Amino acid sequence: MPDVSLLETFPSPGDAPYVIEHVNEEFTSVCPMTGHPDFGEITLRYQPAPAKTGGTCVELKSLKLYAQSFRNEGIFYEAVTNQIRDDLVALMSPEWLQIVTNWRGRGGIRSVIRADFGDVPAHYRGR
Amino acid sequence: MPDVSLLETFPSPGDAPYVIEHVNEEFTSVCPMTGHPDFGEITLRYQPAPAKTGGTCVELKSLKLYAQSFRNEGIFYEAVTNQIRDDLVALMSPEWLQIVTNWRGRGGIRSVIRADFGDVPAHYRGR
Amino acid sequence: MPDVSLLETFPSPGDAPYVIEHVNEEFTSVCPMTGHPDFGEITLRYQPAPAKTGGTCVELKSLKLYAQSFRNEGIFYEAVTNQIRDDLVALMSPEWLQIVTNWRGRGGIRSVIRADFGDVPAHYRGR
Amino acid sequence: MPDVSLLETFPSPGDAPYVIEHVNEEFTSVCPMTGHPDFGEITLRYQPAPAKTGGTCVELKSLKLYAQSFRNEGIFYEAVTNQIRDDLVALMSPEWLQIVTNWRGRGGIRSVIRADFGDVPAHYRGR
Amino acid sequence: MPDVSLLETFPSPGDAPYVIEHVNEEFTSVCPMTGHPDFGEITLRYQPAPAKTGGTCVELKSLKLYAQSFRNEGIFYEAVTNQIRDDLVALMSPEWLQIVTNWRGRGGIRSVIRADFGDVPAHYRGR
Amino acid sequence: MPDVSLLETFPSPGDAPYVIEHVNEEFTSVCPMTGHPDFGEITLRYQPAPAKTGGTCVELKSLKLYAQSFRNEGIFYEAVTNQIRDDLVALMSPEWLQIVTNWRGRGGIRSVIRADFGDVPAHYRGR
Amino acid sequence: MPDVSLLETFPSPGDAPYVIEHVNEEFTSVCPMTGHPDFGEITLRYQPAPAKTGGTCVELKSLKLYAQSFRNEGIFYEAVTNQIRDDLVALMSPEWLQIVTNWRGRGGIRSVIRADFGDVPAHYRGR
Amino acid sequence: MPDVSLLETFPSPGDAPYVIEHVNEEFTSVCPMTGHPDFGEITLRYQPAPAKTGGTCVELKSLKLYAQSFRNEGIFYEAVTNQIRDDLVALMSPEWLQIVTNWRGRGGIRSVIRADFGDVPAHYRGR
Amino acid sequence: MPDVSLLETFPSPGDAPYVIEHVNEEFTSVCPMTGHPDFGEITLRYQPAPAKTGGTCVELKSLKLYAQSFRNEGIFYEAVTNQIRDDLVALMSPEWLQIVTNWRGRGGIRSVIRADFGDVPAHYRGR
Amino acid sequence: MPDVSLLETFPSPGDAPYVIEHVNEEFTSVCPMTGHPDFGEITLRYQPAPAKTGGTCVELKSLKLYAQSFRNEGIFYEAVTNQIRDDLVALMSPEWLQIVTNWRGRGGIRSVIRADFGDVPAHYRGR
Repeated sequence: MPDVSLLETFPSPGDAPYVIEHVNEEFTSVCPMTGHPDFGEITLRYQPAPAKTGGTCVELKSLKLYAQSFRNEGIFYEAVTNQIRDDLVALMSPEWLQIVTNWRGRGGIRSVIRADFGDVPAHYRGR
Repeated sequence: MPDVSLLETFPSPGDAPYVIEHVNEEFTSVCPMTGHPDFGEITLRYQPAPAKTGGTCVELKSLKLYAQSFRNEGIFYEAVTNQIRDDLVALMSPEWLQIVTNWRGRGGIRSVIRADFGDVPAHYRGR
Repeated sequence: MPDVSLLETFPSPGDAPYVIEHVNEEFTSVCPMTGHPDFGEITLRYQPAPAKTGGTCVELKSLKLYAQSFRNEGIFYEAVTNQIRDDLVALMSPEWLQIVTNWRGRGGIRSVIRADFGDVPAHYRGR
Repeated sequence: MPDVSLLETFPSPGDAPYVIEHVNEEFTSVCPMTGHPDFGEITLRYQPAPAKTGGTCVELKSLKLYAQSFRNEGIFYEAVTNQIRDDLVALMSPEWLQIVTNWRGRGGIRSVIRADFGDVPAHYRGR
Repeated sequence: MPDVSLLETFPSPGDAPYVIEHVNEEFTSVCPMTGHPDFGEITLRYQPAPAKTGGTCVELKSLKLYAQSFRNEGIFYEAVTNQIRDDLVALMSPEWLQIVTNWRGRGGIRSVIRADFGDVPAHYRGR
Repeated sequence: MPDVSLLETFPSPGDAPYVIEHVNEEFTSVCPMTGHPDFGEITLRYQPAPAKTGGTCVELKSLKLYAQSFRNEGIFYEAVTNQIRDDLVALMSPEWLQIVTNWRGRGGIRSVIRADFGDVPAHYRGR
Repeated sequence: MPDVSLLETFPSPGDAPYVIEHVNEEFTSVCPMTGHPDFGEITLRYQPAPAKTGGTCVELKSLKLYAQSFRNEGIFYEAVTNQIRDDLVALMSPEWLQIVTNWRGRGGIRSVIRADFGDVPAHYRGR
Repeated sequence: MPDVSLLETFPSPGDAPYVIEHVNEEFTSVCPMTGHPDFGEITLRYQPAPAKTGGTCVELKSLKLYAQSFRNEGIFYEAVTNQIRDDLVALMSPEWLQIVTNWRGRGGIRSVIRADFGDVPAHYRGR
Repeated sequence: MPDVSLLETFPSPGDAPYVIEHVNEEFTSVCPMTGHPDFGEITLRYQPAPAKTGGTCVELKSLKLYAQSFRNEGIFYEAVTNQIRDDLVALMSPEWLQIVTNWRGRGGIRSVIRADFGDVPAHYRGR
Repeated sequence: MPDVSLLETFPSPGDAPYVIEHVNEEFTSVCPMTGHPDFGEITLRYQPAPAKTGGTCVELKSLKLYAQSFRNEGIFYEAVTNQIRDDLVALMSPEWLQIVTNWRGRGGIRSVIRADFGDVPAHYRGR
């Protein structure tokens, strides 16, 4: 089941602003209604807090293991998206953060969920 | 015939704003003039009301069954679009909601209908 | 010859604003100078007046028959575009309406004519 | 290991503003967590300071050798991006500078890091 | 339900060999296991028998109505494909005939079924 | 109505074999069942007989006028294809000749008809 | 774990030869060396035995459930491919059968495995 | 008018077989029926005779000037193609030679003419 | 330096023939002339010997580590290609095996080297 | 001027047949008629003689320098192609060798020259 304790951080390497984008193309969880697997792509974008205020970055391998912990979890698309946003905001207290989940079709319907934290720059909205 | 009672909701998983997009690529209804089938793609975009004010999301399988209930209904493109918007707004009272129906050609004419509720963000208009 | 009496309407299904787009990919008329056929694509976009003020929509099959009535008419591109706009505005009194005619090449020249009525939203202009 | 002393400059040839973009498609370093190699593409964009104020440009072969000095370094994506930005800003004191690192997928996750210095023009942001 | 009596023919207009291809992009039937609708594209290719031996062609509008008669039928992909091939062979006794049905994804699986009658020319196989 | 007397020829300019291909992208006729217009693309390929045996080529403007003479004719796709093949074979007695008609969708069905005369080279079949 | 008892068949609907192709775009299993998930696409092509000799087809939903039973199995690509081929051959005794598994990159390496049974037609090899 | 005296040759630089391809994208002549300009692309492919037998190549600038000499000539597509083939064969006596002329649409019809001399290798036919 | 002892095998899971393809998109070695890094893509295709004769497959992670052992080796493209072919043939004694190395440009020149062992099927040659 | 003495070889690393392809995208020489620069792409493909018979490969940097020696040479396309083929055949005595030169347009004409030595495999011809 989703295990936030798998997430690890390392100190952000500087104070100047920069933006990190990780795209996980191999996400899978389980539909809580039907028990069938869901497949999707999870995009994370964020600007870490400055190093001088204790800003951190999520470590990539730990992010992969955290994502894998959803593998057998029955959970709605909307809840996946909100939980990942909330877990990562709690972990890192970033300047801003954005989660976009893009799900393969099921029953002829494909879905995209977008959740923001803080002031996401205009050129990242709706991407 | 279109059956709004098929629609089900679940509580939105959070208070922070986020946007949900479902694209149904397998919609079909019947032309009320000719009796021939129409085929189209229905895009739904909305921002649910916050959880703390009772915000809800439409459940995906129920949305599919609701869409399938139009299968043998004689109905104009314009009425399909308005009815789906109105049914979903009544169901969820979202912050805003957008329906775009994109119809395959008939008699050499292809059609797109766009209907909004509330303040749809600028970067979603006309998409 | 162009026959506006072929056009039929039905009451718009609601008061909330929405936008209708019909693209006729099989339009043909005749060049009044040379007698040779012209081939083009006609895009119609409009927002109907609200139902409560008597707003109407053009019925799709009647729109096709109306377009077919130009088949053997000798008429300039510019006149086709203006006449269709004017006939449809007279028919429906929409909030706004836009006609774009896109003509295949003739003598190495291809042409696009755009004609508006009322306040066409910015994101539809020049499309 | 990364060796900033490899970088060389030459005087910018003029005072009028202009923008330089170098894309290194053959960057490789080593993951500090797993010891496995990372592969990426590094884009550098900057506007040199005016010649009359001592503005300089980075010499291209020295830039290649500097990038190659990361080959066997164990270093995070975020640190690579910040270090290259900081080294080049220190070297040239440009008007503005942007580093975008685009990393091939690892464990199903591909990443992009964007770091800016100064007032990067709007049309380069998010590219 | 599938109604072969909807099919009509007209005499083939000549004795010399020629090949007819009709692609129906708007086919829908119902899954006999789940009751959910299936959506597919049906391609028919055939060479009619010569006019002098009573060769016939299937009339296009009747072919459309016949295809529409599957709309609410619960039937497997394989049976749709075999039935259409057999019905059209019985109707026209063509020189050769080929049916290819191409189905949209369901449960993450998309399918293609190919059924031939007679000696289909090599350059049409596997298309 | 189709008027073969519009077709004109000129003597083929030589004895050595060569191949002529004309693609008419602006063909229209009328469906004999529904009275609605059909739109298609007609491809003609042929090798003229040698000049020394009286070989001729169809003149391009006359070919256009001949094609335009189908404009208001109610005629099946299959008959259009066979008639054009037969008219052109009678006109020119070419070494070989091929007609491919490619029709825009009607009622969700699009069609291609291919008719040959003589020994069409293998690399032109099925194109 | 992989469960062949999930597979169900139904009688093939005819004796004439035809070819079935199912592409499962949502396959996942687990690497037996690292414990990390693998993601791939599985293509199945086969010609069923004739109905009169007891020929059967695999039912699509059962095929999906069978594929899902690999979800938490630690198994090599090569073994997945061979096992699916062998299980389906044992289930149906088809005329011929082909399995192609196409795996997303892992550690910078992406893989394709192709396994045949019987006489696969030339135009399906290496696709 | 077409002026074959503009063509110049130089000795082929060797005896071993090789193939030369020149594509002239800027050819224009005049329609002898309407007086309107035609625009096309002329492809020349040939294998020169061996140097030891006096084999020659057409010089590129002279080929351009020769092509330009058609600019104000009223001439059919077929005659252009045959004349260029015949002029170049007479000039060089190559092992084989191929001319392909590809004409922009006129009156909705676009055309391609292909003329060969000698034994054109199979992989160049129909290109 | 290249270390063949890193390679591991596991028994091939069956006797029936099948084909394995691994594409390593992240290969790097060093030019023995200039000391600059080379970057390439290595494709391995092979058919393992049957299980009953002791046939084996190369394990994927060991293949990655073996490829990484070339990272700081000064070696020509041709030698890389031959050595990988020879090492893998010695390791597995496959039915046949093919190595294709595709190198990014250096000094404006990009290169591909193809080396086969045994009887590579025709549809894999030159891919 | 072209300087064959710049070419260097190294012993081919093995006896088994393999194929080498180098594509030089940055070739330039001078037109002997106009004095204007020509720009082209030179593709070299060959199979070296076996190592045991003294087979050699051309070294890549020397190949680049040799290609650069044509920079200020006035020379026809045909002569460039033949000379490079002949120089490389004399240098290496390969099993077979192929040169394809692809020239950017000049005066509206673009050109390709293909020259072979020995028995070039069919799947490389005309590429």
